[in-house]
Amino acid sequence: MLPVVNVLGRLLCFFSFTYAIPVVGSLVMGDGLERVYGGATFVTLAAGLILYSSTRRHYRELRSRGGFILVVAAWAMMAGIATLPFLTVYPHMSFTDAYFETMSGLTTTGATVMTGLDGAPPSINLWRHELNWLGGMGIIVLAVAVLPLLGVGGMQLYKAEVPGPIKDTKLTARISDTAKALWLIYFGLTAACTLSLRLAGMSWFDALCHAFSALSLGGFSTRDASVGAFDSVAIEAVLIVFMTLAALNFATYFAAFQGRSLKALWRDAEARAVVSVLVVSTFGVAGYLWETGTYPSFPTALRHTAFNLVSMATDCGYASQDFGHWPIFASLWMFFLSCVTVSSGSTGGGIKMIRTLSLAKQARRELTRLVHPAMVDPVKIGGASLPGKIIIGVLGFIFLYFMSIVGMSFLLMLSGLDFLSAFTAIIACINNAGPGLNQVGPATNYAGLSNFQIWVCVFTMLLGRLEVLSLLVLFTPDFWRR
Amino acid sequence: MLPVVNVLGRLLCFFSFTYAIPVVGSLVMGDGLERVYGGATFVTLAAGLILYSSTRRHYRELRSRGGFILVVAAWAMMAGIATLPFLTVYPHMSFTDAYFETMSGLTTTGATVMTGLDGAPPSINLWRHELNWLGGMGIIVLAVAVLPLLGVGGMQLYKAEVPGPIKDTKLTARISDTAKALWLIYFGLTAACTLSLRLAGMSWFDALCHAFSALSLGGFSTRDASVGAFDSVAIEAVLIVFMTLAALNFATYFAAFQGRSLKALWRDAEARAVVSVLVVSTFGVAGYLWETGTYPSFPTALRHTAFNLVSMATDCGYASQDFGHWPIFASLWMFFLSCVTVSSGSTGGGIKMIRTLSLAKQARRELTRLVHPAMVDPVKIGGASLPGKIIIGVLGFIFLYFMSIVGMSFLLMLSGLDFLSAFTAIIACINNAGPGLNQVGPATNYAGLSNFQIWVCVFTMLLGRLEVLSLLVLFTPDFWRR
Ligand SMILES: [K+]
Ligand SMILES: [K+]
Repeated sequence: MLPVVNVLGRLLCFFSFTYAIPVVGSLVMGDGLERVYGGATFVTLAAGLILYSSTRRHYRELRSRGGFILVVAAWAMMAGIATLPFLTVYPHMSFTDAYFETMSGLTTTGATVMTGLDGAPPSINLWRHELNWLGGMGIIVLAVAVLPLLGVGGMQLYKAEVPGPIKDTKLTARISDTAKALWLIYFGLTAACTLSLRLAGMSWFDALCHAFSALSLGGFSTRDASVGAFDSVAIEAVLIVFMTLAALNFATYFAAFQGRSLKALWRDAEARAVVSVLVVSTFGVAGYLWETGTYPSFPTALRHTAFNLVSMATDCGYASQDFGHWPIFASLWMFFLSCVTVSSGSTGGGIKMIRTLSLAKQARRELTRLVHPAMVDPVKIGGASLPGKIIIGVLGFIFLYFMSIVGMSFLLMLSGLDFLSAFTAIIACINNAGPGLNQVGPATNYAGLSNFQIWVCVFTMLLGRLEVLSLLVLFTPDFWRR
Repeated sequence: MLPVVNVLGRLLCFFSFTYAIPVVGSLVMGDGLERVYGGATFVTLAAGLILYSSTRRHYRELRSRGGFILVVAAWAMMAGIATLPFLTVYPHMSFTDAYFETMSGLTTTGATVMTGLDGAPPSINLWRHELNWLGGMGIIVLAVAVLPLLGVGGMQLYKAEVPGPIKDTKLTARISDTAKALWLIYFGLTAACTLSLRLAGMSWFDALCHAFSALSLGGFSTRDASVGAFDSVAIEAVLIVFMTLAALNFATYFAAFQGRSLKALWRDAEARAVVSVLVVSTFGVAGYLWETGTYPSFPTALRHTAFNLVSMATDCGYASQDFGHWPIFASLWMFFLSCVTVSSGSTGGGIKMIRTLSLAKQARRELTRLVHPAMVDPVKIGGASLPGKIIIGVLGFIFLYFMSIVGMSFLLMLSGLDFLSAFTAIIACINNAGPGLNQVGPATNYAGLSNFQIWVCVFTMLLGRLEVLSLLVLFTPDFWRR
């Protein structure tokens, strides 16, 4: 345990510097809260130094077991320490609500229990959005570097074939190089998004905040009405582009960058599938909304479908319309997409497109096997065939993912929530998408839930973020047996 | 194709004799409809003889492809010809509704579009219940003998280990022996159930009808209010016992019978799991219903939970209470059980307990593998380990099963049905359980659905009954390629 505490201490020390952004923001915007973030920096740094220095003698490379504990503890601890500004600025806010907000931020879920965001101190909104953005950074390194080492995650499927940084993941020493390269791309895209949003008509402040939550696919907004408050086609168009970019594999960008060519992007079967699903679904649902009279013209239907569907399918979770009032087919279809669409190695959540593709191919293979039992026809993704062990792993993941949805939904219903709210809240949390439907729909938020329900959602967000297995493994007796 | 038509012709000839029961029933009860069934016999026999004799030269043993076409065509054709009495007695009934009723009967789903059952001619009710019973006979031979030959179905998992008739399934010639032995047990249990229901206070007519629908787990009733109309603890207790017996593997009964010992039953890991799930869930849900004040005392809650939960979990589908008005946790939990509980080789539907067990063990193994990557720990059911190919098959089945639920639910929602009705109707149909919730709940029936929705449900019943794969395979291009 002590080597894990040592790493956690170092993480806290780094984390203490992240308060610099709201400190600067507070000074620039003049909301007078700079001391709050200064205090939080001090507490975080002190806690980090104590943990680090008291366990310095125990530092060693972590093994698999320690890795799992570290990953879970890091997210839980950072969400805990990140509540400091909320609890200081809003003395009446409960720890439960504050923890929901920070965990929602750091897992890039983007569900909120806060109302009155439009009038909140700017630095508080900046801190919320920065949590999204930091969470996205954590996820990239988690998905590309850490989870494959632990034997978890969709990126395993890539091991054998993708050019670029992933092949190097076996060497712990190169993790940080990989992470740094991917973060540079992440920074660059965030800067481009901020600039584009400014040009589309947002203030610099709103542009930066929304760039933070778009690239991380976190989906926090500075407004209660989310992106709908801006009512701007240009802003929606910019966000659609950057949400889509964020839903693709950052390792592919790296490969394209290294090769000085967009060929890597084009050759990425997963990226092609993501974009196809988004385009086809958008036109289909827009047609349906037009035909059912939800919107008076096809262009209007297309505008609103494009934004809200891409937002939900990429697990970002902005809303520009109350899609909770769309015909149930349209809104639930977006929740279905939120489970299966985004690319592995992106900042999105859920099953990931590469697993979706393997499953579809495996299902087809099972059917073919019935007709041609002797036929040997391995499942292939992007030209490389997948060994049976990997397929069992993918199918096992899907099973645990579905069972988690079933189990957690039942917990929410047991505590009195209705079926639609419970089911969509869990889908939204496990995919780190954000809004659900009905009581937790886009026109409202998670503030109406009981404390027990809030904690179920918090657990589910973390479950989804850590690809289910990394958190569930802590609950097996084998894990704790010597 | 012609060899398949030949077998279908023979099936129709046999099927024509099944009208003998409503003919006798009509004469005994004096409802004056004997000519209707006589006419149906004539039409069915004539159609059968024409198909049979015109293709006699083409008779040959069927291969896998022909087997799939036969299984699907047999169910579709018999449901079609079985509509004759309904269409004759009720001239205003549409073919769609009549086909729903017969397919619901023959797949042992037991959902109905008919109201006024209490006042319907007795022979019509007898015919409905006989369809349930004939469906059950078909399913036993399908599950134990036919599907394993085609490479489909939960019984595959048993191949290596269970004593008794299953090992012989490789020889087509022995299929009929196996089927006959299992049918004898089915007949015996039906007789015992009829007698017990009579002793519990039902008329001979009601007793026979409900024995037909209990042993087949079909769930048709002679009353609109289902078993609730009798309001008798004794009747409910008898039905609980026989529904549970029907939810176990008939091959195990055969083994117990051959060995003159109940040891085979006790050694059946699947049977133990089924009974444990039923008992634990009953007490848990009864406690919940008592605690939430749905019923004033624990004994009352226990009585109603025991009957309705066992009925739904075994996919029988009788109701004694409007459980659509129970707290949503309790009613949806019963729908969850309807997916996973019954034993393979029984007349129930859904995933089947043996697959549920393999999945749970496989999921646990995936988690263990994360901690001990080198550990070789094969998944075992009842002492025998399962090869990876079988596990991939099971996981592939589950995936197609879940995707079918998702896809069919979306179709119903696309046509305007609400989420809860659509979702539970599909669950009830694919598991061949019967009632759903809300618009298709136990206090109402499927009569309110549109024609399109009815056909979606019909397709889903058949999909579930044929273990998903056997029907879906017909929709793959590979199947039709030479
Ligand atoms: K999100
Ligand atoms: K049934």
